[in-house]
Amino acid sequence: MNIHQKLPFIWHGGDYNPEQWTQATWWEDFRLMQQAGITVATVGVFSWVSLQPAEDRFTFEWLDEVLDGLHTHGIKAILATPSAAQPAWMSQAYPHVLRSDEYGRRMAHGGRTNFCPNSSDYRRLSGNIARHLAERYRNHPALLLWHVANEYSGHCYCETCAQKFREWLQIRYGSLERLNACWWTAFWSHTFTDWSQINPPFRGSETLMHGLNVDYFRFMTESQLACYTHERDILRSITPDVPITTNLMGTYKPLDYRRWAREVDVIAWDCYPHAKQATGEIAFVHDTMRGLKDGQPFLLMEQTPSSQNWQDVNAIKRPGVLRLWSYLAVAHGADSVLYFQWRRGRGGCEKLHGAIIEHSGRSDTRLFREVSQLGAELKRLGDAIIGSAYRARVAIVFDWDNWHALEDAIGPVRNKRYLETVNKHYLSFYRRNVAVDVVFPDTDLAKYDLVIAPMMYMLKASLVQNVEMFVRKGGTFVATYLTGYVDETDLVFENGYPGPLAHVLGLWVEEIDALYDDQHNTMILPDGSGTYICSHLADVLHPITAEVMATYGEDYYQGSPVATRNRYEQGEAYYLGSDPDQAFLDRFYEAILDKHGIQPVLITPSDVEATARYKGEQKILFLLNHNPHPVTVELGTTVQRDLLTNQVCRKSIILEGYGVSILVDEPEGD
Amino acid sequence: MNIHQKLPFIWHGGDYNPEQWTQATWWEDFRLMQQAGITVATVGVFSWVSLQPAEDRFTFEWLDEVLDGLHTHGIKAILATPSAAQPAWMSQAYPHVLRSDEYGRRMAHGGRTNFCPNSSDYRRLSGNIARHLAERYRNHPALLLWHVANEYSGHCYCETCAQKFREWLQIRYGSLERLNACWWTAFWSHTFTDWSQINPPFRGSETLMHGLNVDYFRFMTESQLACYTHERDILRSITPDVPITTNLMGTYKPLDYRRWAREVDVIAWDCYPHAKQATGEIAFVHDTMRGLKDGQPFLLMEQTPSSQNWQDVNAIKRPGVLRLWSYLAVAHGADSVLYFQWRRGRGGCEKLHGAIIEHSGRSDTRLFREVSQLGAELKRLGDAIIGSAYRARVAIVFDWDNWHALEDAIGPVRNKRYLETVNKHYLSFYRRNVAVDVVFPDTDLAKYDLVIAPMMYMLKASLVQNVEMFVRKGGTFVATYLTGYVDETDLVFENGYPGPLAHVLGLWVEEIDALYDDQHNTMILPDGSGTYICSHLADVLHPITAEVMATYGEDYYQGSPVATRNRYEQGEAYYLGSDPDQAFLDRFYEAILDKHGIQPVLITPSDVEATARYKGEQKILFLLNHNPHPVTVELGTTVQRDLLTNQVCRKSIILEGYGVSILVDEPEGD
Amino acid sequence: MNIHQKLPFIWHGGDYNPEQWTQATWWEDFRLMQQAGITVATVGVFSWVSLQPAEDRFTFEWLDEVLDGLHTHGIKAILATPSAAQPAWMSQAYPHVLRSDEYGRRMAHGGRTNFCPNSSDYRRLSGNIARHLAERYRNHPALLLWHVANEYSGHCYCETCAQKFREWLQIRYGSLERLNACWWTAFWSHTFTDWSQINPPFRGSETLMHGLNVDYFRFMTESQLACYTHERDILRSITPDVPITTNLMGTYKPLDYRRWAREVDVIAWDCYPHAKQATGEIAFVHDTMRGLKDGQPFLLMEQTPSSQNWQDVNAIKRPGVLRLWSYLAVAHGADSVLYFQWRRGRGGCEKLHGAIIEHSGRSDTRLFREVSQLGAELKRLGDAIIGSAYRARVAIVFDWDNWHALEDAIGPVRNKRYLETVNKHYLSFYRRNVAVDVVFPDTDLAKYDLVIAPMMYMLKASLVQNVEMFVRKGGTFVATYLTGYVDETDLVFENGYPGPLAHVLGLWVEEIDALYDDQHNTMILPDGSGTYICSHLADVLHPITAEVMATYGEDYYQGSPVATRNRYEQGEAYYLGSDPDQAFLDRFYEAILDKHGIQPVLITPSDVEATARYKGEQKILFLLNHNPHPVTVELGTTVQRDLLTNQVCRKSIILEGYGVSILVDEPEGD
Repeated sequence: MNIHQKLPFIWHGGDYNPEQWTQATWWEDFRLMQQAGITVATVGVFSWVSLQPAEDRFTFEWLDEVLDGLHTHGIKAILATPSAAQPAWMSQAYPHVLRSDEYGRRMAHGGRTNFCPNSSDYRRLSGNIARHLAERYRNHPALLLWHVANEYSGHCYCETCAQKFREWLQIRYGSLERLNACWWTAFWSHTFTDWSQINPPFRGSETLMHGLNVDYFRFMTESQLACYTHERDILRSITPDVPITTNLMGTYKPLDYRRWAREVDVIAWDCYPHAKQATGEIAFVHDTMRGLKDGQPFLLMEQTPSSQNWQDVNAIKRPGVLRLWSYLAVAHGADSVLYFQWRRGRGGCEKLHGAIIEHSGRSDTRLFREVSQLGAELKRLGDAIIGSAYRARVAIVFDWDNWHALEDAIGPVRNKRYLETVNKHYLSFYRRNVAVDVVFPDTDLAKYDLVIAPMMYMLKASLVQNVEMFVRKGGTFVATYLTGYVDETDLVFENGYPGPLAHVLGLWVEEIDALYDDQHNTMILPDGSGTYICSHLADVLHPITAEVMATYGEDYYQGSPVATRNRYEQGEAYYLGSDPDQAFLDRFYEAILDKHGIQPVLITPSDVEATARYKGEQKILFLLNHNPHPVTVELGTTVQRDLLTNQVCRKSIILEGYGVSILVDEPEGD
Repeated sequence: MNIHQKLPFIWHGGDYNPEQWTQATWWEDFRLMQQAGITVATVGVFSWVSLQPAEDRFTFEWLDEVLDGLHTHGIKAILATPSAAQPAWMSQAYPHVLRSDEYGRRMAHGGRTNFCPNSSDYRRLSGNIARHLAERYRNHPALLLWHVANEYSGHCYCETCAQKFREWLQIRYGSLERLNACWWTAFWSHTFTDWSQINPPFRGSETLMHGLNVDYFRFMTESQLACYTHERDILRSITPDVPITTNLMGTYKPLDYRRWAREVDVIAWDCYPHAKQATGEIAFVHDTMRGLKDGQPFLLMEQTPSSQNWQDVNAIKRPGVLRLWSYLAVAHGADSVLYFQWRRGRGGCEKLHGAIIEHSGRSDTRLFREVSQLGAELKRLGDAIIGSAYRARVAIVFDWDNWHALEDAIGPVRNKRYLETVNKHYLSFYRRNVAVDVVFPDTDLAKYDLVIAPMMYMLKASLVQNVEMFVRKGGTFVATYLTGYVDETDLVFENGYPGPLAHVLGLWVEEIDALYDDQHNTMILPDGSGTYICSHLADVLHPITAEVMATYGEDYYQGSPVATRNRYEQGEAYYLGSDPDQAFLDRFYEAILDKHGIQPVLITPSDVEATARYKGEQKILFLLNHNPHPVTVELGTTVQRDLLTNQVCRKSIILEGYGVSILVDEPEGD
Repeated sequence: MNIHQKLPFIWHGGDYNPEQWTQATWWEDFRLMQQAGITVATVGVFSWVSLQPAEDRFTFEWLDEVLDGLHTHGIKAILATPSAAQPAWMSQAYPHVLRSDEYGRRMAHGGRTNFCPNSSDYRRLSGNIARHLAERYRNHPALLLWHVANEYSGHCYCETCAQKFREWLQIRYGSLERLNACWWTAFWSHTFTDWSQINPPFRGSETLMHGLNVDYFRFMTESQLACYTHERDILRSITPDVPITTNLMGTYKPLDYRRWAREVDVIAWDCYPHAKQATGEIAFVHDTMRGLKDGQPFLLMEQTPSSQNWQDVNAIKRPGVLRLWSYLAVAHGADSVLYFQWRRGRGGCEKLHGAIIEHSGRSDTRLFREVSQLGAELKRLGDAIIGSAYRARVAIVFDWDNWHALEDAIGPVRNKRYLETVNKHYLSFYRRNVAVDVVFPDTDLAKYDLVIAPMMYMLKASLVQNVEMFVRKGGTFVATYLTGYVDETDLVFENGYPGPLAHVLGLWVEEIDALYDDQHNTMILPDGSGTYICSHLADVLHPITAEVMATYGEDYYQGSPVATRNRYEQGEAYYLGSDPDQAFLDRFYEAILDKHGIQPVLITPSDVEATARYKGEQKILFLLNHNPHPVTVELGTTVQRDLLTNQVCRKSIILEGYGVSILVDEPEGD
């Protein structure tokens, strides 16, 4: 489904909550939105009680006027179903709608995402309001996209969920015998002799049964996803041509978004880095979100125009940073620039969150000017970027199940550093302007030259198969310590680590030493060309077919291998037995990139990012100056045109502090 | 009501728990009290089960003997009602008397202040025991003052309270529509469609609805106050001439003591600084307590004679410090020096708290000597101080509602530093011996020249009106960042900050930047005469009628105003857009004080405090040496007499380490 | 009961969980155990559901085969009853079996040690399975020792326990009057007027009634001990000749192991130091465990062969350290070297805990080699050590009740440092190779020359009596600040501190000053020979008959005594009024040791430990090199034979890094 059919340019807009405001304010807002170059408004998020003040009473009139008003001002609507927070009347009438906490205690009404995802009343009533919305607005000209609920999150531990979980387990495992075997329940006499004995992982009662924990995470992912698909199917049946999505939250641990990706028409996500966050960390999440649907462009559904409010310190984005980070998203695959939110509410716990129209109600502000400038630029870009795609020959494997299983494991260290480690490997490429895709255990790896799978503690059969095929055909694979411990049920492989990848990696691991935070070892290259720091954990390992690339410099395993390379059929598989410093990683990956002839998009000065999207054969080059000061970037011999300024550049270009250029080859040359 | 009618000098005494001891000990205690110059004993606190071991059985005989014994030893009694902790039999017979915690779970019996303040059984039974006490002792010659319960504290979250809260809200808001509007419930679909849907702010369920939170705090203040007034009215009806109070805890956040001040005949408070606490912080709380009843002297109801027990480290007051801090209280308005407690209990969780008679039971101790010396001094002072008052031309506004609303707000920084900031401004005056009153939003400001209202995030209509009038008539007003965000219902003002004070301050605030703890900006005076550090938050603001007094030295708002002055009618209103260092504040306030001709009480060496009380035209000058070493203080040309030594001083006086002098003009000269 | 009758040498083995593995694995395990020199396997721990999958169904067949297999491979069995974790079917059928948490909330099934120790169903069913085991295996030749349950731990707060607690209190106190008096309940109106009003110390309700707290700890100790003795008595009745024990956890605060010691035939304990733990801390716990049964050798029941998994960082024991720490245990009284565990499980929360056979299943590992070497050595030692005992003339008093009472007390500092202080005094002896016994308040002190009782806040009548007798007869006694505050009911002594030891110590304490962590005072010797740092607390004390040994160097009590000596009849009693640095303690104890003519076992280089056990008149000298590098130890003039190498040593011996020698006099000389 081409979500840009109706609006074939980069959308510009954001969340708007007219139900909090008077009619007079609406029309002032429409006027200001036009002035700011807003093309899309997200409405209806959290509007349930405003649309349905009682189970048998609906009040759509205000929304009629808002949608009409948007339309007459040339603004499209992302229309939300309101199901992210049920009205108080519903919690009162159907107490089982209320979520239970980790102790199994039903919570009182309040907050948001406060529903039990397995409540039949919630399903019925959320489906019902979705149906009403779809039927009423199916033909409204402003309707651009369905936005189901909002930021599904958290877990529920109520008796309804417990019962559904038991049913889910029966299907998954078939028999109690198999479940007992996979969960290794003979340990501590935990063998279940009846399905009814199985509970959610209640805090204070049973949080150490890892197989159960990871399954409860999967079950909760599916339970909430079922809430989404329940509404989606109703919307689809009434408006088959309107795309449908829900907004995700990046690397949000409690829900497996790879599982959600199949069910949405487009990935949409809410990007809330803190003010000091490294751009390499933000870019990594953009790449992860792009990867969810195997490279399909995504929607930047929310970002703050100025500051958040929930951090310890909510610094304001410096002038130019809103624009810079908006293009950062676009460069990595976003086809929209949307904000939370248009107008700050006068109450509620987000009343001090940034918005385009602040409490002063004024538009003669720096922020309004920056937003308007960006709106004008996006209009100027037209459809130049729409339809373009990212191209990477390097992939990093990321997996939610593994994240859960790894961080749930007790030992060999408490702090497993999964996300940190994945990001660390990513940075080696990001900082040299080499494109990376984030992929998943089920991703076909055929199109890559280099695949890195850090800390694949839970090693799925699908990934084993994909990696085997990949290396066999000439790919280069990199694994690290903490790889290949458990299968998908969290049961340890029978022959130790790295489990079913032992033959590809050509080694076995005898011991895993844990290093204190103030402790490190060294990695010594056999040719004497370098010594590097390593830390965190240290595998004492034995090559079988692998060759030694570096040895430990200290401790009782001094001289034993820390990094190895195994030739496997046409390809190679590397293993890093400890956590090297960035200098080692940079050198290590440089050699691999050279071998595969993988070039940076452009060589740039420090903290200037060059990223490309490709439209057919046309390369669209994004230059992003993450420095506060101006820099000169050498462009080489081709002549380029800056899509933002329409100026032609030769040899080099000067980027302002936090400046951005989007360059395409100028065919006619000089 | 003149509380000193019966005992017209500074009371000396403290808590005494005879119900924990044998008769023999009582008579030993009376003897030792006499020896130590004790004139007042507080009895009956927590004596409920000792007075009423079963609902239908009373045992007053022991108290008869104690009161008689005190009387025959010339000691008056502050007689407490015992209602601060109900007996176990009551919790057992009436389980709804038990308080519920923040999750709404009824707690088991135990601890203290463990009653639901809205329990009708608690009200009935606490009123009943108060009536019995009053009727029995109405004519007892020792009876000096009623002390109702003890340190009311905490909140209850039970169903009784929830129901009463709903009724309280109905009265406050009149309609659900108005409540929904004020609480901005359209946010997150929180609109209430029935009063019964409203709950206390249960932890884990709904703690983010700020309007509800601040109202629950108000409701809990009133619920507990109603427990007090219920007993008070009974006592008053039986002993109309005996003053009534309860002991407060300084800047105790959970209860709004300004609201309590109206209902007590005299403010009484329990002063427990830790051993390293700055005297400027202690003095600030004394001034706050004095302010509660608009300057009326107060009772120092409790202080430890030696050490506390609940701090991490409970260092002992150094020799002289008990006396010094006692006079510190008197200097700031106390008309009593009372201790907790007379004799250390042999059990209970306060058994290691300091007392005059320690577990050894001995009186040949340093502490007993210091207390006795103080007792003798207070006797010598006679009524010299009684009837005197404090005089200040500077006021700092403090408000409990604002404290709650501000610290409850999410953003722009987590740590709001309200109390810290109020105290920081206070210190500029305290350290130069300039008298300050702590006032409240409803205080008439006519008698002040300078009024400072730091961080008035919740800006009440009464304060706006008082400030307007004050500045209009020539007063100087100082406001800071975080001023004028929300009204009394926690709803943001419609035109941004500083809300209804915009015209008085002559500016509007565009952005609020938050600074990390290790970050700062500078304030540059336009005449080049100084650069100062500022931190915490940084308003980017726009003068309308105000003039710029200092500009930012750094960051993207470099050169824009950080401090402004607005001439408004006869007066001036200053605004500080960031948190300046103490050097700036000192210079800033020095200029304002000069302009108004406000002089220090006396110019003294570092850490020597000079504070005055005035009895008619007579100035009573307190000199307090907070240094451990002796200092010489220049007194100027007048001749003074030290009320403690009866010595005449000319030109200067030498104060011992931790020494105190109380000086009055010696009329006959030399 | 001589537990070594059947196997008269140092046992070598550990936990083995065949119920987690297939039959094929068992026989592989038996073979590998033989190869590793394993002589003992602990089986049946946590096997309840494997032995009894339903209340009316038993499945002992697998255990039959395992025991037979062990036997045919020459391996004895420590047979566990499985009662440390009940099966899910039991929790489901008898919900009152489930433990309740500190809030009195019944927990869901899960974890381990998850039973209510007062549940009659648990008692009945755990007794029943014990009986089945005993009857089935009473004559099995492999049966060596009964291991009841596993690591009893934690407390329960359910209604059953509450009711039993009330009954227990009625017996203990006889009357409510006495209980009220001992618990000082007049404080805060806590007087109980009916037994039914007494509850366990529920968190959030009543945790500050210290007398109740310490009694609940005692009650929980006895409740769990009753679970043990219930099973023990059944086992004893069926197998009167088989010794019975359960495994303890060292200085585990929630259970008073001195109380358990009477009921077990041999102390067995699980030793889990972290990788960086000082050996002096490990040795202290070994000595404490040896002390529990007044010097009887103990079993090292569990230790990790390589690493734990529950620490933040689980570093691996360096090569040689497993052997070194095994002999450290033996040197201090262990007659076994047992591991947890034989084979790592493939699941469960301990799946990453060290084991002899790791997940790889291989035996060609460093660890397997070290274990096998140790096994061979232990076989070579034969019965050389069995029957030998420790000899000490110095004792340190340790008491669980005091530990609870002291750390529960509020004031004078939060961090009481009890264990730390006991260990600090211990180290003065450990580091000079002077043997120490850890004793208890009820221990007969006649055989010691020096007894140290640090921080005996709760001073029991038995200890007072023992100390009096001890000093009277010429012993040297050392007490410290925080001594003699409360009696066994947690009621403060009537005449202050040090309570009933005042006459022995010859002083009284007037004040206790608390020092901040960054603060200290000094101790000055009157002869000018030294000044030492002291910290934590500082007693201001008055000698009555004592003489001053050192005075404070600073603060208001400068020059007043900090250390005193009192001659009492034939002996001396020292008092340390503050916490001296190690240098003071070393000098202080050196003088006392000299006076009593107590010599080190041997004078050794730094971090080389010399410890002795005695078999009749034969001294068995253990030399333990805790350094990673080799050292030379001077042996003096006698000729020694190393039991491990059978080599004869003259004058000196070289120990490898982490090396061990066990030397006996070589009678024939050179």
